[in-house]
Amino acid sequence: MRFDILTLFPEMFTGPLTSSILKRARERGAIEVNLVNIRDYSTNKHHTVDDTPYGGGAGMVMGPEALTNAIENVVGRYGQSSHRVLLMCPQGRPFSQALAMDLAGEKNLLLICGHYEGIDERVRETMVTDEISIGDYVLTGGELPAAVVVDAVARLLPGVLGEAASFEEESFQTSLLEYPHYTRPREYRGQMVPEVLLSGHHEEIRKWRRRHSLLRTLARRPDLLEQAELTREDKAILREVLQDLASLDLD
Amino acid sequence: MRFDILTLFPEMFTGPLTSSILKRARERGAIEVNLVNIRDYSTNKHHTVDDTPYGGGAGMVMGPEALTNAIENVVGRYGQSSHRVLLMCPQGRPFSQALAMDLAGEKNLLLICGHYEGIDERVRETMVTDEISIGDYVLTGGELPAAVVVDAVARLLPGVLGEAASFEEESFQTSLLEYPHYTRPREYRGQMVPEVLLSGHHEEIRKWRRRHSLLRTLARRPDLLEQAELTREDKAILREVLQDLASLDLD
Repeated sequence: MRFDILTLFPEMFTGPLTSSILKRARERGAIEVNLVNIRDYSTNKHHTVDDTPYGGGAGMVMGPEALTNAIENVVGRYGQSSHRVLLMCPQGRPFSQALAMDLAGEKNLLLICGHYEGIDERVRETMVTDEISIGDYVLTGGELPAAVVVDAVARLLPGVLGEAASFEEESFQTSLLEYPHYTRPREYRGQMVPEVLLSGHHEEIRKWRRRHSLLRTLARRPDLLEQAELTREDKAILREVLQDLASLDLD
Repeated sequence: MRFDILTLFPEMFTGPLTSSILKRARERGAIEVNLVNIRDYSTNKHHTVDDTPYGGGAGMVMGPEALTNAIENVVGRYGQSSHRVLLMCPQGRPFSQALAMDLAGEKNLLLICGHYEGIDERVRETMVTDEISIGDYVLTGGELPAAVVVDAVARLLPGVLGEAASFEEESFQTSLLEYPHYTRPREYRGQMVPEVLLSGHHEEIRKWRRRHSLLRTLARRPDLLEQAELTREDKAILREVLQDLASLDLD
């Protein structure tokens, strides 16, 4: 898959693209990432891309010209092949694992990193196919959000992660949070690994993990539990918890 | 404010920390960021930090020893000054602007970037004060989430952003999405800037912006509107919309 990232700060992607899994994915040719400096498409003599907002107010707005030129240049190279134009902005649709899986089906993704107070509304209305927000917080620009989207999408592509198995049970893939993990040593500063995990009894271990996945999700993110597809066993576990609660004197 | 980031991939932070606003904030001394390689605290001869999970299954788990040593080394240097130990992980509390503002009140933040299948549960239970998730999607590690938290917190600190005014009206600060922005030229490829923004009539501009802020939030993120503190004027605007809707024949 090809990612084209339009930004005013291409150097921000140095670390994220040249380390760990994304580095290896690029080396293997599983993904290609192209950084485009929007400023290179400015046609005015000072190569500025921002201007004061109509109607007044603080901050600067990214104008339509350089950005449109940069988008059209990239999209022109896609030819007939499928693509989406994503704008990273706080007003966008919340990014989710389902959206990552949807995007992983495209051949090309163009990501626009917003900056300043935002981009001119006319570009948003005519050229952008998806506006995406990675969460309800304010960042200095769209660069980190774009890196987050590239990371989440890339790792779903064939040949990027080593073992396909390692993402089957992950949080959000199944809408439940993960169960607790333990590794050596068995005892660490007086704290023991739960006995069942040392038992070698696979069926008991599976049940323990599912139970802890359900209870952790219930405790921390009941909103996820509502969306989850629960098995008959899951429901039996949750009924047990309900009975335990019902038997308490809560008045 | 001081940020200590514990990671297996310190090089991932090169771009995010050496560009744009975070770069300037560090140069001005408004923030200090210290990268700690967890691997440097491993005491085994191959400097490994991961091991197979008790109970079996795919993937590796970050063991308790190197991580505990690294945390204790950093926390020891904080002395009596206030600090929080944040673990970036999908099971955490969703990161939000309110949490960013809360964290901006600390003197020191220690951020742990999880990797592999996760970290040993005993470290999570005994040393971590806050588990934070930046959103409901799966990433290759906690590095980008840590960069997101540093960015969101740092920009709230005094002396980091140029104009204090520029973040007063932002999305999430007020729980409403931002209104559309426009800059030069007035006409771009046949699309005009809305007339009211050219009028110079400050009160009309203010009303137009507030109305578009409300309507955009209603259209895209009604969940935010429920939490927003609406003024009498806001409620009047929304009542008007309600009346417009009620007068339509929707059967």
